Amino acid sequence: VFFGPRGREEFPNNTPFGTAPPDPVVAGDIAVAVTELDQMSTSVPVDQPWTASGADDWDRQTLDAWLRANTSGNAEFMAVTSAATEAIFGCEARELSLLYTLFYIAASGNEQNAGTFERNFNTAGGAQESRFVGGAQTIALQVAAQLGRRVVLNAPARRIAQSSSGVTVVTDGFSATAQRVIVAIPPTLAGRIDYDPPMPPLRDQLIQHMPQGTLMKFEAIYDTPFWRAQGLSGQAVSEIGPIKVTFDTSPADGSFGILMGFIGGHEARVWENRSADERRAAALQNLANYFGNEALNPREIVEFNWSSEVWNRGCPVAVLGPGTLIDFGTALRTPVGRIHWAGTETSTFWNGYMDGAVRSGERAAQEVLTAL
Amino acid sequence: VFFGPRGREEFPNNTPFGTAPPDPVVAGDIAVAVTELDQMSTSVPVDQPWTASGADDWDRQTLDAWLRANTSGNAEFMAVTSAATEAIFGCEARELSLLYTLFYIAASGNEQNAGTFERNFNTAGGAQESRFVGGAQTIALQVAAQLGRRVVLNAPARRIAQSSSGVTVVTDGFSATAQRVIVAIPPTLAGRIDYDPPMPPLRDQLIQHMPQGTLMKFEAIYDTPFWRAQGLSGQAVSEIGPIKVTFDTSPADGSFGILMGFIGGHEARVWENRSADERRAAALQNLANYFGNEALNPREIVEFNWSSEVWNRGCPVAVLGPGTLIDFGTALRTPVGRIHWAGTETSTFWNGYMDGAVRSGERAAQEVLTAL
Repeated sequence: VFFGPRGREEFPNNTPFGTAPPDPVVAGDIAVAVTELDQMSTSVPVDQPWTASGADDWDRQTLDAWLRANTSGNAEFMAVTSAATEAIFGCEARELSLLYTLFYIAASGNEQNAGTFERNFNTAGGAQESRFVGGAQTIALQVAAQLGRRVVLNAPARRIAQSSSGVTVVTDGFSATAQRVIVAIPPTLAGRIDYDPPMPPLRDQLIQHMPQGTLMKFEAIYDTPFWRAQGLSGQAVSEIGPIKVTFDTSPADGSFGILMGFIGGHEARVWENRSADERRAAALQNLANYFGNEALNPREIVEFNWSSEVWNRGCPVAVLGPGTLIDFGTALRTPVGRIHWAGTETSTFWNGYMDGAVRSGERAAQEVLTAL
Repeated sequence: VFFGPRGREEFPNNTPFGTAPPDPVVAGDIAVAVTELDQMSTSVPVDQPWTASGADDWDRQTLDAWLRANTSGNAEFMAVTSAATEAIFGCEARELSLLYTLFYIAASGNEQNAGTFERNFNTAGGAQESRFVGGAQTIALQVAAQLGRRVVLNAPARRIAQSSSGVTVVTDGFSATAQRVIVAIPPTLAGRIDYDPPMPPLRDQLIQHMPQGTLMKFEAIYDTPFWRAQGLSGQAVSEIGPIKVTFDTSPADGSFGILMGFIGGHEARVWENRSADERRAAALQNLANYFGNEALNPREIVEFNWSSEVWNRGCPVAVLGPGTLIDFGTALRTPVGRIHWAGTETSTFWNGYMDGAVRSGERAAQEVLTAL
């Protein structure tokens, strides 16, 4: 479903347009923007985006400025770009460096396939296609099961001290000493650890330039996935928030129905401060606009705001503004003494995704194995 | 002295152009840019810049994009803007939100006088006019003298816990409990304190969006202020770094000479990672270009990099990129329970300056007195 000031349209999600609405007012701009961004991204090396031949030019523009200069820039199209960046980055196009955006597109691929924006945002054949049976936490739980009692919970690292003989991680309750340590948390949290000796200036300032996006999930649970009977996939793209993008996150057996909506970027910053009742009413009205009035009466609502989580401080990924990659990018993965850096923001493929997080862990583990 | 690829020019600093070079290649663009920025800044309320009628438009542009769109954008002019933003903000124009820049200009005034860019960057009649006999630390030392033994040094606040009856600040060695607390440190450091309960999402994310600028001071000390004999003020503006702006910081009696140069923004990020010998040679060559070869042989050199200071992490002020003020600005001064916020970044006048820091302390103290 595509929803905007001109009303509601249904469209299939298996055309070459993918998840993007083929509406005539916005489709031309979307096609131009996606095609050109994809094309530019092919010249961005995922391991050193700051060395791209266009890097100087691209890292001084915001995505917003580039979009306005290279499309009609009409209000409806810009509203659709908000729907996209709010869901994908938890921010607005004005906050994104064009170079970082191009890197993010290039990273939406792998060793065999060039990244494309379509691969990033599509359900059919794209990053949004699959969900985990048992939930995304399965990755962490299965890693933890292999590690067994070596996993210590409820022990936030407060301080990391290095010496010539080892590195000590200090928590509230105990300390652990090792030859090497891997820090695999959001950059803004890595910056809040007390390091001895202190981080080099470039590393500390990189972290200061990597705020987390702002993202809330709003899930409305129904007795049945009633939209399916109307032939709808449960996906919507809307110019009007708070919820501008939705997905069907019902259980595989369809025994009940869940509509999940993202409230991101500017919408999240506004709506996280309003009352739960107001937010709930506005969000359910969004769902009713897309899928009919049956959406107004869920049997349960689950909301989650990553910005209020002490160990996230935002989601889904760090947002890099103009000038960050080109001046600070070299500090992203460079170990500092005995400290190595992992986490999805350090990944060269599927940066910002769970796939990238796992990749980064494997890369950092290999660094440590090589060093020992 | 103005220095660039076309060579070296001398110019007086008491013309209407102030500190800006009246060179024909750059003067037209400087005049247009300063005049228009000053004009736009008059509509920015210093206490709520996000409510300006142009705020939406201005907070999605970088200063760099605005400059290129509203001047010739020629390479020499853009190099001069780097000299300005590197010294004033410790960053490049690409990192600065236009709205934040306009606010910063508007804040370069006081209750009686509108701020102007000239007031910010000029020596004659501007913010760069005066220095403290005894050094800038005199402000802190005199405040400390009045407070006496109530000042506790070497006790970084690690944790601030609030309850219904009071607020407790925990340091490595001891805790202190009070009715109210004022946090008056750079925002990026305020974000590294562990708060209980945690900061509200908007406040925490504001802090994530306020990286400190990157600034080094390089001082070359000579037996005499030899440039004065040539009729030079010791001020230079250069298109070629690392040092692009200099001042005469000799003692008042002229008993010896000091040339102080700023290495800021991109230059600082590059040069802080090179060897001290390389940096020293490049910086002295800058000074020789401006003031003659006598500058090559100082009797002493003093360098200071604020980014490597654990309790600064950058200087002179936090740098706000596009989208920060408009989405997060309301959290800048809003107390969180018993915690009040001071520091120059919270000031409505002379934000980024020592004047603003003192003003912010007085405002926060008044907030606390009213609350008690």
